[in-house]
Amino acid sequence: MSNIRERVKTIIFGTETKGGRLFDLTLLWAIIISVVVVFIESVPSIKALNPGLFTQVEWVLTIIFSIEYILRVWSTDKTKKYIFSFWGVVDLLATLPAYLALFITGSQYFIIVRGLRLLRVFRILKLTRYNKEASTLVLALRRSRHKISVFLLFVVLIVFIMGTIMYVIEGQTNGFNSIPESVYWCIVTITTVGYGDIVPKTVLGKIFSSLSMIIGYAIIAIPTGIVSVALNEQNKEESKEQCNTCGNTPLDGDNYCGNCGAKLYL
Amino acid sequence: MSNIRERVKTIIFGTETKGGRLFDLTLLWAIIISVVVVFIESVPSIKALNPGLFTQVEWVLTIIFSIEYILRVWSTDKTKKYIFSFWGVVDLLATLPAYLALFITGSQYFIIVRGLRLLRVFRILKLTRYNKEASTLVLALRRSRHKISVFLLFVVLIVFIMGTIMYVIEGQTNGFNSIPESVYWCIVTITTVGYGDIVPKTVLGKIFSSLSMIIGYAIIAIPTGIVSVALNEQNKEESKEQCNTCGNTPLDGDNYCGNCGAKLYL
Amino acid sequence: MSNIRERVKTIIFGTETKGGRLFDLTLLWAIIISVVVVFIESVPSIKALNPGLFTQVEWVLTIIFSIEYILRVWSTDKTKKYIFSFWGVVDLLATLPAYLALFITGSQYFIIVRGLRLLRVFRILKLTRYNKEASTLVLALRRSRHKISVFLLFVVLIVFIMGTIMYVIEGQTNGFNSIPESVYWCIVTITTVGYGDIVPKTVLGKIFSSLSMIIGYAIIAIPTGIVSVALNEQNKEESKEQCNTCGNTPLDGDNYCGNCGAKLYL
Amino acid sequence: MSNIRERVKTIIFGTETKGGRLFDLTLLWAIIISVVVVFIESVPSIKALNPGLFTQVEWVLTIIFSIEYILRVWSTDKTKKYIFSFWGVVDLLATLPAYLALFITGSQYFIIVRGLRLLRVFRILKLTRYNKEASTLVLALRRSRHKISVFLLFVVLIVFIMGTIMYVIEGQTNGFNSIPESVYWCIVTITTVGYGDIVPKTVLGKIFSSLSMIIGYAIIAIPTGIVSVALNEQNKEESKEQCNTCGNTPLDGDNYCGNCGAKLYL
Repeated sequence: MSNIRERVKTIIFGTETKGGRLFDLTLLWAIIISVVVVFIESVPSIKALNPGLFTQVEWVLTIIFSIEYILRVWSTDKTKKYIFSFWGVVDLLATLPAYLALFITGSQYFIIVRGLRLLRVFRILKLTRYNKEASTLVLALRRSRHKISVFLLFVVLIVFIMGTIMYVIEGQTNGFNSIPESVYWCIVTITTVGYGDIVPKTVLGKIFSSLSMIIGYAIIAIPTGIVSVALNEQNKEESKEQCNTCGNTPLDGDNYCGNCGAKLYL
Repeated sequence: MSNIRERVKTIIFGTETKGGRLFDLTLLWAIIISVVVVFIESVPSIKALNPGLFTQVEWVLTIIFSIEYILRVWSTDKTKKYIFSFWGVVDLLATLPAYLALFITGSQYFIIVRGLRLLRVFRILKLTRYNKEASTLVLALRRSRHKISVFLLFVVLIVFIMGTIMYVIEGQTNGFNSIPESVYWCIVTITTVGYGDIVPKTVLGKIFSSLSMIIGYAIIAIPTGIVSVALNEQNKEESKEQCNTCGNTPLDGDNYCGNCGAKLYL
Repeated sequence: MSNIRERVKTIIFGTETKGGRLFDLTLLWAIIISVVVVFIESVPSIKALNPGLFTQVEWVLTIIFSIEYILRVWSTDKTKKYIFSFWGVVDLLATLPAYLALFITGSQYFIIVRGLRLLRVFRILKLTRYNKEASTLVLALRRSRHKISVFLLFVVLIVFIMGTIMYVIEGQTNGFNSIPESVYWCIVTITTVGYGDIVPKTVLGKIFSSLSMIIGYAIIAIPTGIVSVALNEQNKEESKEQCNTCGNTPLDGDNYCGNCGAKLYL
Repeated sequence: MSNIRERVKTIIFGTETKGGRLFDLTLLWAIIISVVVVFIESVPSIKALNPGLFTQVEWVLTIIFSIEYILRVWSTDKTKKYIFSFWGVVDLLATLPAYLALFITGSQYFIIVRGLRLLRVFRILKLTRYNKEASTLVLALRRSRHKISVFLLFVVLIVFIMGTIMYVIEGQTNGFNSIPESVYWCIVTITTVGYGDIVPKTVLGKIFSSLSMIIGYAIIAIPTGIVSVALNEQNKEESKEQCNTCGNTPLDGDNYCGNCGAKLYL
């Protein structure tokens, strides 16, 4: 029994064995098919062709994913840790909505369930989970999370203040019917999306929105700069070499190790 | 009396004591409620539900903020410095508009007052005032302010010239009715916002606007580069360490302090 | 015969001799004319002026390019390598569509052929093929291809999930008729293009799309950071100098070569 | 006479003397007034108020600028060099159009003249001509001009090919009436401007335009990276210090001057 559990674990969690690789590839295809089914099922003209087929495919895949989840929980050595890990939660969320749809009959809720099922796509990320490049990116973003939070707070403040000013200027007309709507307009403008569903009509409104655009155009430089610098530092740290004598990481350009004084031949 | 003043000061200006932290948190929530009230009050359908309620909440908060402002002025050691500091002015502006609305009855003006009141949101910034990351960002932006000014002047010139050329090309039709309107179009285009409320109709106009777009797409690289470099330099400076012997900041890679000649163990 | 082949090769493939340069310039102009003809031929009002002329010019150019392709294949020393190289395939694709149009009479297909012919423009790239700057750019992009792939996968996931959520929120109306259309809207929004052909109408939809815009505005920083860092590293590597004694590439700031110990005079 | 010429030169070209500064400030205001007049004159409702006034102001300013140009040519030591320099040409272009409008009566042409007159605004640039920051920016851009040219050629190729493919896909309808119009759409899309005047209607067209948007979103990183790196290098070069003994510029982190071997105390 323990032997079977070990083998199941190797196949499901491992990626080195032939069986493990085959399992991962099969799972990946199952997820892609599942996502495609949700996708094309949402197109009324396609759904009308054969509504039963989509439901059947969905249920077959749901059962496969459910069995997979149970096997994962059973075979892992750290059951509790897995269940509450990011991937444990994603694996569970990939199966739960289909069952929930059985008990909660309201079609309104069923649609939300359908949306959640798309989260299955996250499983694909498993393939890159240990990818070095992805981890460099994640570490660089974590490194810059404080600066980015400050920046986002700053953007939110700007957007609220500018939205209010615009509401005052445009005189509650032309789509600027309330402060929340003016703020929505301001976000559309400052992020340079520019739908054009709400546009200023007054001269003062046009001048002020020009100002908003230029501000939006200029501040995009800030997160970019933050991420560039963080990535650069992350890269430097990863490429730094150690002193052969004591294992210390010397500063760039040092000729002697700052820790043990040995001559460095980096 | 001086003892009370000292305690009030610790609570209002300090953030280390239990009372000071509680005060800051209460104030933050009062500000958020106040902003939310201004927001939802501006939606006609919500305002209609209970117009009196919003007015009452606003007045309660205005009185709280007024008392807070008076206590700040009274308790601080440097009254004059506080009043004319950035936060002193913001604190005053957060209360004044509500009183002004009493004397100036024109609803037109009242709306402007409402907009100014949103500035209360700035108080939230207090929480990050001494935040190291925010100050790094601010210092990096200050460091690059000359380059950004030159860049903005350059953008303004481009936008004026291109707007005029477009006015000539599009023959005063299709929304390009005057040079200011053409300049507005040019800002919308060059910042890549692209509302689509004014679009070129002639062949020459389309060619020229394509050129504007590519220019806009290319010059976004300039502020980004400026901020990246400034942030990088700011980071380097902050991470530089001092000589243990004399406190001098040596250059990267120096093995001996440039000031006192001591061997550096950075 | 071998002599003629050698001369043809020098003229066609070489760029140093007078004949080779003349050939390249003539070819470049022929390509530009060919592209312009395809372009203006697609404008109905211009095509109507003289439909025969365009067909004639196209055929003359097709024959010239065909002869050129045959001469290339005949004169090169490594026939097989050339045919299957990037430029060999592009050279062939520049002539084939015109002949294919003879046998496949359906006008529908003919239009596709016309589109492929525009690939002729790629030949112009030959001029910059060995351009150092282009190769630096290409190497920097190759260096960052893993990071960019991870980023693109991440963007695709975000766009799919957000599109589905938006489909659920907007209730299958207002252009959000199916998940694929919602995903299309999400791409238009997150890339900050913002056509405005599909816009949210509900309050929740506006809040959620504001979130999408801010996410799109923030993540643009990631590829920018990746490319900046890669370009920086590529530049550093190219500007590094060698040790005069052993040819080793020393680290920045080293005074002695890390390989042979010789004093460096970079 | 030579004495007067010297004084005129000091006032017009110099910026250090009291007279020179006053002259520059007066000129700057005259230019701003002149630009504002052209601007507001183009608004039909403002022009109608007092058409004569604008014409008078324009003529007074034109005469002032003409006298200034003549004085410049007369007082400079290097007449020929000045006339053909960038600023010499701009100074001439600021006055010529007004005179040309006298002889060429067609209102059509007159409008073009009006547009050219806006170039007067360039004179303001004089103030920053020797600005260090501006020159750093210009040098950084010059440093990266080869890479940016390669990038622009690449963008042009992508835009032409994608425009043609889109023309084939959308079947010459929905605004994609010709290849040039499809290319215009592609520029609007890839630069993320997104007017929304031409949008894809077919499913294949939407898929393909999504691809274009993601490409546009990704390649914006390239010019940004180029400029960031160039600015960084430019900054480094400018901040480099010299050896006290021989004036050589040593590499970062060198302890001994690479030229004369003296100990460096940077």
